[in-house]
Amino acid sequence: MANEKEVSSGDGPSKNALKKAQKAEEKATKKAEHKSQNAAARGDVEQDGEDCAKDRYGNLPLNRSEEKRPVTHTLLGDVSSSLTNQTITVRARLHTSRGKGKQAFFVLRSQANTVQCVLAVGENVSKQMVKFVCNITKESIIDVEGKITATEQKVESCSIQDVELHTTKVFVVSAALPRLPLQIEDAMRPEEDDPEGLHIKVNQDTRLDNRILDLRTPTNQAIFRLEGGVCHLFREALRAKNFTEVMCPKLISAASEGGANVFGMKYFDKDAFLAQSPQLYKQMAIAADFGKVFTIGPIFRAENSNTHRHLTEFVGLDLEMAFTHHYHEAMNTIGDMFTEIFRGLRDNYADEIAAVNKQFPAEPFKFLDPPLVLEYKEGVAMLKEAGIEMDETEDLSTPNEKFLGRLIKAKYDTDFYVLDKFPLAVRPFYTMPDPSNPKWSNSYDMFMRGEEILSGAQRVHDADFLVERAKAHNIPIDTIQSYIDSFKYGCPPHAGGGIGLERVTMLYLGLDNIRKASMFPRDPKRLTP
Amino acid sequence: MANEKEVSSGDGPSKNALKKAQKAEEKATKKAEHKSQNAAARGDVEQDGEDCAKDRYGNLPLNRSEEKRPVTHTLLGDVSSSLTNQTITVRARLHTSRGKGKQAFFVLRSQANTVQCVLAVGENVSKQMVKFVCNITKESIIDVEGKITATEQKVESCSIQDVELHTTKVFVVSAALPRLPLQIEDAMRPEEDDPEGLHIKVNQDTRLDNRILDLRTPTNQAIFRLEGGVCHLFREALRAKNFTEVMCPKLISAASEGGANVFGMKYFDKDAFLAQSPQLYKQMAIAADFGKVFTIGPIFRAENSNTHRHLTEFVGLDLEMAFTHHYHEAMNTIGDMFTEIFRGLRDNYADEIAAVNKQFPAEPFKFLDPPLVLEYKEGVAMLKEAGIEMDETEDLSTPNEKFLGRLIKAKYDTDFYVLDKFPLAVRPFYTMPDPSNPKWSNSYDMFMRGEEILSGAQRVHDADFLVERAKAHNIPIDTIQSYIDSFKYGCPPHAGGGIGLERVTMLYLGLDNIRKASMFPRDPKRLTP
Repeated sequence: MANEKEVSSGDGPSKNALKKAQKAEEKATKKAEHKSQNAAARGDVEQDGEDCAKDRYGNLPLNRSEEKRPVTHTLLGDVSSSLTNQTITVRARLHTSRGKGKQAFFVLRSQANTVQCVLAVGENVSKQMVKFVCNITKESIIDVEGKITATEQKVESCSIQDVELHTTKVFVVSAALPRLPLQIEDAMRPEEDDPEGLHIKVNQDTRLDNRILDLRTPTNQAIFRLEGGVCHLFREALRAKNFTEVMCPKLISAASEGGANVFGMKYFDKDAFLAQSPQLYKQMAIAADFGKVFTIGPIFRAENSNTHRHLTEFVGLDLEMAFTHHYHEAMNTIGDMFTEIFRGLRDNYADEIAAVNKQFPAEPFKFLDPPLVLEYKEGVAMLKEAGIEMDETEDLSTPNEKFLGRLIKAKYDTDFYVLDKFPLAVRPFYTMPDPSNPKWSNSYDMFMRGEEILSGAQRVHDADFLVERAKAHNIPIDTIQSYIDSFKYGCPPHAGGGIGLERVTMLYLGLDNIRKASMFPRDPKRLTP
Repeated sequence: MANEKEVSSGDGPSKNALKKAQKAEEKATKKAEHKSQNAAARGDVEQDGEDCAKDRYGNLPLNRSEEKRPVTHTLLGDVSSSLTNQTITVRARLHTSRGKGKQAFFVLRSQANTVQCVLAVGENVSKQMVKFVCNITKESIIDVEGKITATEQKVESCSIQDVELHTTKVFVVSAALPRLPLQIEDAMRPEEDDPEGLHIKVNQDTRLDNRILDLRTPTNQAIFRLEGGVCHLFREALRAKNFTEVMCPKLISAASEGGANVFGMKYFDKDAFLAQSPQLYKQMAIAADFGKVFTIGPIFRAENSNTHRHLTEFVGLDLEMAFTHHYHEAMNTIGDMFTEIFRGLRDNYADEIAAVNKQFPAEPFKFLDPPLVLEYKEGVAMLKEAGIEMDETEDLSTPNEKFLGRLIKAKYDTDFYVLDKFPLAVRPFYTMPDPSNPKWSNSYDMFMRGEEILSGAQRVHDADFLVERAKAHNIPIDTIQSYIDSFKYGCPPHAGGGIGLERVTMLYLGLDNIRKASMFPRDPKRLTP
């Protein structure tokens, strides 16, 4: 009020004073609003009379860690019929709610779990309390105390189906705005499932623009838990084989894979680039005697392509290893690593896979142990037999790649396979040519559901031969001199490969777009959130 | 020869033809040289007579995976007296060699292991073979067959001391150039150990310029294996507590921590920046219900400071978690995680720690379980008591920080500790103020050997309060609008922290420079290799 007066009186308040006053006014108004809302919500109004439940609900003050006490909350994921008749407190989001006379039915959601709650006017529950709960905005975080009670019928709409919470207390921890930019129920609805013919879909840009809401769906909770699992299984498979984790710089002084598709920037008084792969660095780690290495980190590609499977920034799972006699020692190590990843996902992430399949149905991922390995020319022969016209040293087009995937699935019943001995002409200069036939190279790709997810090879580990190969590719030697120099002081024969994490997640789960497997995807048109 | 003729005859060869001819000539010369070298090396020269050992040594052709066969090589790390009298083949580097009449003594090195080999002229070993071995360049990779034989005296200069290899075959897999830009023996010499008064040191820039050689020292092999171990232990400690690993983008549309010290770049038709931390994204993961998350990835700081502990690109180990009542739930989780890391390093990386200490002696790292937690003002009081003049809400200067570390070590015998409740004024705008006293905040730093390695806090999880705090820090709201919006749809109270991986490695091992803990360090003056 004092401030309001300051604004209206006087005939020339400074700009600053004005601003200050406005701010204060906004604050005062907000405070007043908040108070009256709270009062209304809590039913502290005369006409409703004395509230017998007034200590059992309300808005908690902003948690600023005023009070240190033991955590006795139960996780929603731990709620089951084995706890029947126990009174527990859970913290979760208000997923949905509806009032029905003197009762409120509401659903709590925490990560992938949902449970039904019932609140009914009675000895300890007032009309005002029911009204308060019905007015809580969806997506608010609330603490709910209730008794776990067996349900007569399965609650089909919830993940927890055989018990519900008979609610005794409800406190709002963090309120959501009443208008949400997207509804979680819409975002989690299976695309095929539309019994009411409402065609309510959330399109991809709306999802990505409001990613923190979109990510709350059980599907997305599952996708990204599984993606974390891929990283874990990748590392564990390799650590068990004595690989060392290394860190490769992303700021580099020359474009690592040729000048195209590279992001450039100023670095103090120099020019720098963002690494398009850790290729040179993981090979340097081999030349530096680390023997077997892996590295996980961002990969940057300034490629202006807006496809279902390209990102400008993605996560690379890279590995490289010295071998003794033959690059198949490395290729088989990688193949077996994938088998371990697939087995680990199948065995330890069954709930996540099921959650994703509920919204995006897909065939279970099939794999063989050991993995199927075909030579490139065998793959081409299969395509030719099926009517595709192509030369055996021609690169696989995306449609041919996918078609070959279907042919292989039909013949071998596997969604994962290795193509070995790619045509030399379609591989980078540092790929070791096949010694017996100049058409081929000691290189391989690996595929999931007919899409490439790993590219790898034996590398040229001899400086002179590397220069020869670079010249054959018209690569100016001075731009890769330090790379070449790495092989002048003795380097063991080695091979490796690079994997796109998001592609593995996408293809394992049978998703249709790589953006579904990137928490905050980056493409030529998207740099936010 | 044909090509040579082409060059000398004719009176106007085209530029191309000339170039081609030169190339061919170079190749022919090289081939001839190679042949004669090989002949000389192998002793295929008449005056030395028939070579009884000619199939037992030589240069192997470049390995292009001609032959697939079982790997029967023994790892140098597995060589011990338990294998005495067995004949094995190892692949390793020629570390040093010297001829002595009809004998050659040479040392093989593989990662952190070294073993002595003896080759003596005899029934199966020719003079030519000894000569060949003496001429192999240091750092070449060789396959050596030999019988494991007990030594009479401990071989003090090798890591394997009680056995040596009585050599029967030697083949060069990959030869090193004869002139090395640095000697591994120099690079691995303890700085204090200079009995011959030669003062041969390898300075840091020489090391870093030739990092692939420098990294081969047992010290560096150990440092980076241990660093990989820090990542592993970090993840395992958090996974055991149900944290989910997430991936945060490095390309962002606005400078995340204010405009200073950020690398900018062109992103198609937009401007982009490199993330200075995953702060916003890990908090968004909390607002998106992931509950507890961690992320490992590069952190970019365009800070023009050339100190012993700053890098422009380093690896961040970041975590964030929702808590129920009090931010100490998170702080203690982090503290306990450090205890697990320290325990894991001590128990599983004893060899690596010993290897590093040999070159860079340091006191063993001490820690308490549970960790020591002091309030900031208690730390300041200790400094004041020791004669430092400072205000209790002033930030710790680097010398004071280190001095406090020594005071705490003396008083509590720990190299790790937590300072809680930092002055609000020295923390970022998103730090939750202490509710009971506006001087303080719900924030903490963690220290190793008196240097900060983690900064963390309870975050403001309410959009309105966040705006208020940003204004108090004079941060233009429009630059952080999407960050603020993240908290409008319900967000649990949460806290977290960020750790610099290289600092943890450096301080755990008591190294004097962070570049020693970064495989390919980046600072304002260094962007290569």
